[in-house]
Amino acid sequence: MSKGRPPSERMTLFDPVREDLLRVQETLRRSSVVEQFPMLANMLDHVLDFGGKHMRPGITLLCSKFAPCDAGPPVLMATAVELLHIATLVHDDTIDKANMRRGRPTVSTLWGKDVAVLLGDYVFAKSATYVCDTGDVRVIRRFAETIMALSSGELQEYLSTFDASQTLEQYYRRIDDKTASLFTIASESGGMLAGLPEGPVDALRRYGHNLGMAYQVVDDLLDFEGDEEVVGKPVGSDLRQGVMTLPAILFRDRYAEDRSLAEAMEAKGEAAAVGGAVAKIRQSPVLAEARRTAEGFAAKAQAALREMPESESRRSLGALTEYVLARKR
Amino acid sequence: MSKGRPPSERMTLFDPVREDLLRVQETLRRSSVVEQFPMLANMLDHVLDFGGKHMRPGITLLCSKFAPCDAGPPVLMATAVELLHIATLVHDDTIDKANMRRGRPTVSTLWGKDVAVLLGDYVFAKSATYVCDTGDVRVIRRFAETIMALSSGELQEYLSTFDASQTLEQYYRRIDDKTASLFTIASESGGMLAGLPEGPVDALRRYGHNLGMAYQVVDDLLDFEGDEEVVGKPVGSDLRQGVMTLPAILFRDRYAEDRSLAEAMEAKGEAAAVGGAVAKIRQSPVLAEARRTAEGFAAKAQAALREMPESESRRSLGALTEYVLARKR
Repeated sequence: MSKGRPPSERMTLFDPVREDLLRVQETLRRSSVVEQFPMLANMLDHVLDFGGKHMRPGITLLCSKFAPCDAGPPVLMATAVELLHIATLVHDDTIDKANMRRGRPTVSTLWGKDVAVLLGDYVFAKSATYVCDTGDVRVIRRFAETIMALSSGELQEYLSTFDASQTLEQYYRRIDDKTASLFTIASESGGMLAGLPEGPVDALRRYGHNLGMAYQVVDDLLDFEGDEEVVGKPVGSDLRQGVMTLPAILFRDRYAEDRSLAEAMEAKGEAAAVGGAVAKIRQSPVLAEARRTAEGFAAKAQAALREMPESESRRSLGALTEYVLARKR
Repeated sequence: MSKGRPPSERMTLFDPVREDLLRVQETLRRSSVVEQFPMLANMLDHVLDFGGKHMRPGITLLCSKFAPCDAGPPVLMATAVELLHIATLVHDDTIDKANMRRGRPTVSTLWGKDVAVLLGDYVFAKSATYVCDTGDVRVIRRFAETIMALSSGELQEYLSTFDASQTLEQYYRRIDDKTASLFTIASESGGMLAGLPEGPVDALRRYGHNLGMAYQVVDDLLDFEGDEEVVGKPVGSDLRQGVMTLPAILFRDRYAEDRSLAEAMEAKGEAAAVGGAVAKIRQSPVLAEARRTAEGFAAKAQAALREMPESESRRSLGALTEYVLARKR
């Protein structure tokens, strides 16, 4: 069985659902087939080939393995979760004015912002058709609520740029909406489609939520402490775009007398001012504090997992928590 | 009963579902309540107050009256249909770079294009939650397919601007996707939620499709023959934006030797060139031909209606067909 298996980390983590994940990839490939509209098919091919880690669909599949069930609905749902992730990337790249995504030009770069808006809408709707095909109205409604949370989270981020006064509470709500909500639907839908009772479904929901929170806090940390070569974008990108993340908020609260962060915000992300604030934050203990916060979320995810029966899937989900903390990009 | 009834045309057409329509308006108003995010609530208030004719939700409600059924699900669906319409307007105004919509500044004008993208996403998702609350998976799936059609239609329009060679067939497919698809889901979902068998549901579907086609052809006609004061935008807007509609396509095919249309397209909508083409088209018989096309679609809508039992709702839906043909804006 293990012969010919690619040696990547992903394949190790997702071994228990390897076959299902291949079916998801196959379904994704078929999603770009649009009769009578070759240009749209072309654009879909481009965005579907972002070549992500398929972490979110992997979570859905692993969570569906806690009870014997037809793999069909979880495969459809996992496909929907990945497509939803792609749709948000297409719209986010438009708003962040990003030119590249995972080494490929973004839709906005290739075809303009207007096309990116409409293509994103199409992919949102396409993802919803796969959720509909699961036939589970509760899951479909949670999926729609997740799209509301995702757009609300992005809106909160957009409207709070260069606002140095935002609270920790606002930060947590924002990253819950813009990031953790997708991990939450990924995990809970797997359990729901496997027909688990509400207790275990809720445990999986808390697992996904806390994993997603850890994921975003690590993301925000990497923007300060990461190696530019590995992360693939310059250190301090968030501050340059006016986004106050956990390290910045902690620094402001711990060092009220230090003006460097306020100056970076007032200078609207001007490079020298941002560089000054980044240097100060890197030298301070707030990065270690932020890392402890990420570890705290990961520990809560692990605690939720312990409510589930011991199994190969549970071990994979546990290892994923470690992977999220350890990742360098 | 008729005492105190506002004398507007809408209220006459939608009299059989007057109470339900008030419930839709009430549900729409409640949609803008977002706890802990007052700015989003603010923006939703703005777009929900576009004050449209509520034609599409009215169709859903009328179509649900062909069998006795709980009014709850049709009211939810009608709310979803109106919200979906609003979401597409928010994204379309972004792409058309429109500054005003029904006498009010667009979201892009007030808060910028990025906010309009995210707010539109939020309203799309919000509309889907109401469809989910009907509990009917078939209807939910058709709703998702409609969003795919709407975005695909807008994409077709965007990608074909200033392309003078597009065919009549491409035009019909485009307006089916971008306009008629919403009328189609509005009508068929009413029948589905009333529990009608597939035969009558299909008749209502054809009614909605043909009404929507007539609606868009009339829209395209008004852009040539309308009174600027009444329509609210300058004559020839479509050509100025490079959109070839039915009159333009017919003119090109009937008067292959006339260069004025080709020149307007080559000049990328420059005012004098467009003015020349508009004058030629207004003087030609193609506007009368396009009107006959609209009448043909309306006649098909009426024929589909005749498959339904005679009732107050059927009379209203029939009158709506006349209204769509007669409208001046």
